[in-house]
Amino acid sequence: MNQSLQTHQLNPYAIQLCTLGRWITQRQWLPSGSGLFSVRTSEHSALFTASDKDKSELSPADLVSYDWANPNERDTATAIHQFLYQLKPQHKVVLQTHDLQATVFSRLIKADQHLFVGYELQQQVAATAAQRSCCPLAILDPQSTELTLQELHQRFERDTLAYAFLIRGHGLYVWGDSIDSAKRHLETWQFLIACELERIKAANQFN
Amino acid sequence: MNQSLQTHQLNPYAIQLCTLGRWITQRQWLPSGSGLFSVRTSEHSALFTASDKDKSELSPADLVSYDWANPNERDTATAIHQFLYQLKPQHKVVLQTHDLQATVFSRLIKADQHLFVGYELQQQVAATAAQRSCCPLAILDPQSTELTLQELHQRFERDTLAYAFLIRGHGLYVWGDSIDSAKRHLETWQFLIACELERIKAANQFN
Amino acid sequence: MNQSLQTHQLNPYAIQLCTLGRWITQRQWLPSGSGLFSVRTSEHSALFTASDKDKSELSPADLVSYDWANPNERDTATAIHQFLYQLKPQHKVVLQTHDLQATVFSRLIKADQHLFVGYELQQQVAATAAQRSCCPLAILDPQSTELTLQELHQRFERDTLAYAFLIRGHGLYVWGDSIDSAKRHLETWQFLIACELERIKAANQFN
Amino acid sequence: MNQSLQTHQLNPYAIQLCTLGRWITQRQWLPSGSGLFSVRTSEHSALFTASDKDKSELSPADLVSYDWANPNERDTATAIHQFLYQLKPQHKVVLQTHDLQATVFSRLIKADQHLFVGYELQQQVAATAAQRSCCPLAILDPQSTELTLQELHQRFERDTLAYAFLIRGHGLYVWGDSIDSAKRHLETWQFLIACELERIKAANQFN
Repeated sequence: MNQSLQTHQLNPYAIQLCTLGRWITQRQWLPSGSGLFSVRTSEHSALFTASDKDKSELSPADLVSYDWANPNERDTATAIHQFLYQLKPQHKVVLQTHDLQATVFSRLIKADQHLFVGYELQQQVAATAAQRSCCPLAILDPQSTELTLQELHQRFERDTLAYAFLIRGHGLYVWGDSIDSAKRHLETWQFLIACELERIKAANQFN
Repeated sequence: MNQSLQTHQLNPYAIQLCTLGRWITQRQWLPSGSGLFSVRTSEHSALFTASDKDKSELSPADLVSYDWANPNERDTATAIHQFLYQLKPQHKVVLQTHDLQATVFSRLIKADQHLFVGYELQQQVAATAAQRSCCPLAILDPQSTELTLQELHQRFERDTLAYAFLIRGHGLYVWGDSIDSAKRHLETWQFLIACELERIKAANQFN
Repeated sequence: MNQSLQTHQLNPYAIQLCTLGRWITQRQWLPSGSGLFSVRTSEHSALFTASDKDKSELSPADLVSYDWANPNERDTATAIHQFLYQLKPQHKVVLQTHDLQATVFSRLIKADQHLFVGYELQQQVAATAAQRSCCPLAILDPQSTELTLQELHQRFERDTLAYAFLIRGHGLYVWGDSIDSAKRHLETWQFLIACELERIKAANQFN
Repeated sequence: MNQSLQTHQLNPYAIQLCTLGRWITQRQWLPSGSGLFSVRTSEHSALFTASDKDKSELSPADLVSYDWANPNERDTATAIHQFLYQLKPQHKVVLQTHDLQATVFSRLIKADQHLFVGYELQQQVAATAAQRSCCPLAILDPQSTELTLQELHQRFERDTLAYAFLIRGHGLYVWGDSIDSAKRHLETWQFLIACELERIKAANQFN
């Protein structure tokens, strides 16, 4: 057993991340091995799930350490996780999922964000007092890694994001200062997105 | 172990309420730790679920006693439970849930109630003989605690409610004279609301 | 243990019917203890599920014998089961369920039957060669027991029913010459109804 | 135990195919015993699931060997499996399923194919680099076995299919060079079809 593997198995967050993987796959928010989870291990490193590995069967040994002081070739999703960790030290956990409702919602909304109004559960993802009554969800178009990071940089400069954003057809990203808070943000945004998709679809049929 | 904790564990309703919590969370009617359950313990007190506690993992020790002779600071949901207990001694159990269909339905219906007609299962929630053929579901707008209680007072003076009402975007409240009857009312209203949402959405596409 | 109870426990169909109850409740086709199942025990008798009993928890001792040579007070659902047993000796099992899709579908279709065309699975419920390509599902309005039986009598005189009919807002009835065939007819009709509901809803949005 | 049975039980793919059967039936993509799975055993033979057998209860002994050097009477689904095996030696596993979304989608799309654009998961089924950005799903009308095979022959001559096609109302066919890849193609196409069905249905309601 090499030192890196030992480190993962001693990391209690690694075990929690695997448990969360089972919880999320049961809800079918990670079809076909999609999605990427990570948990911060230091100021400049994190453990990542292996790409395409079925997240219902994760064990700590399946997590891969990534250190941005020694950058490797990386895909857009990994680069987005790194961006979020570098943005704020409080960001401890990042989750990318691919469920049906978020995927469809991200394609139907043409604007670069959608405002959620009138749901009591907004309070669970509000990052500011104002977001309790009007909570934005940013939506980006898929682009090259470089352009995606540039746009995220601009979005975070301009707005306070409510612990989540969508990339059209490319999944939902959520984060938190712990596994529990990231899970809470994920579950709440899944609920809000599914409600809003259903509400808008039905609105023309009512009254 | 203090006396309050002992009381909860000796209360058979406390155990049943925890079992019901698991049944309800399996149906995904309580996203992100939302919802509030309570069971009456005396003329002027009840046991409540702790706020934000995941109801799939409730144990009797997680229930909190609340006595309205010695009022604490309380949120709107707790105040509504208390209101229902004070309204009638037969009210023994109150459940607030947050499922997708009830949330969306409450936002789409603009009137202050919706009449359910033509469903055999109405008989399971009918509080009067007339409600077997035409069963109303009251819908309130979210307001301050004080205004919400005022409006509930007026609604109950004016109408016989069918063991349930909705607060727009803020969940479904149901009650009963036992855990079993509250569960039955909850399951029936979830079914009726989901049917009616689907029926109205589809009505324009048919014929 | 009385003789009637012994009889039930010795009846292998009684055990199979209870197993089927769990399979059906898992699919949420029996909300709030609704539905009625029965299995023929002789030319003029059958075992019935007790009314309002949760069918996920059935045991053979929960089944009630009913003999139409010694008629009791009976509700419409029981009378319909009896009618089907008396119609043909091959009718061995009758199931009434209350799922969302069948309930909504029965309310949206205004005609007294709906023709299913173009589904490969029609062959599983076709009672005649012609029904493989065009399979009717009869839909009745809810009425008094007496009028319901009169109308069923006329329907069966006029048409060959494909092992099922709907009563608007009052559930789906299916039957078969064994538990397995009744289950197969139920599962197939649930699939066909859910497909057709979705197809008609979506048809206006496509092309 | 005859030799054929021994062969099946020694075939590790036979066991994997049974495991896959349980995974697929849990998702309710095989109502009423429908669907057909097979795994290649040689250049000119494959093991098939028995027709109408519930695929949640498959064991290797339930698989039936079929050798196209000694052709039997065969139905259209079996003939399509054989066609796919004969087309390319890399085709090792073929799955036919019957889920609601694919069935409805195949009926709503009137064209002979549908182009999927804008989903990150397209990359999981893309058979060419171009299909990563625009991925076709072929849709055939149900016909006689002979005409179906003729049309499939023409389709494969003209286009590179993305490991799947639909027959209107008669199910989804996917294949792969291993059980894992066939499962991955199935799960991905189910996701893409369900998203696209929902997206098109909702498109008129948005913006």
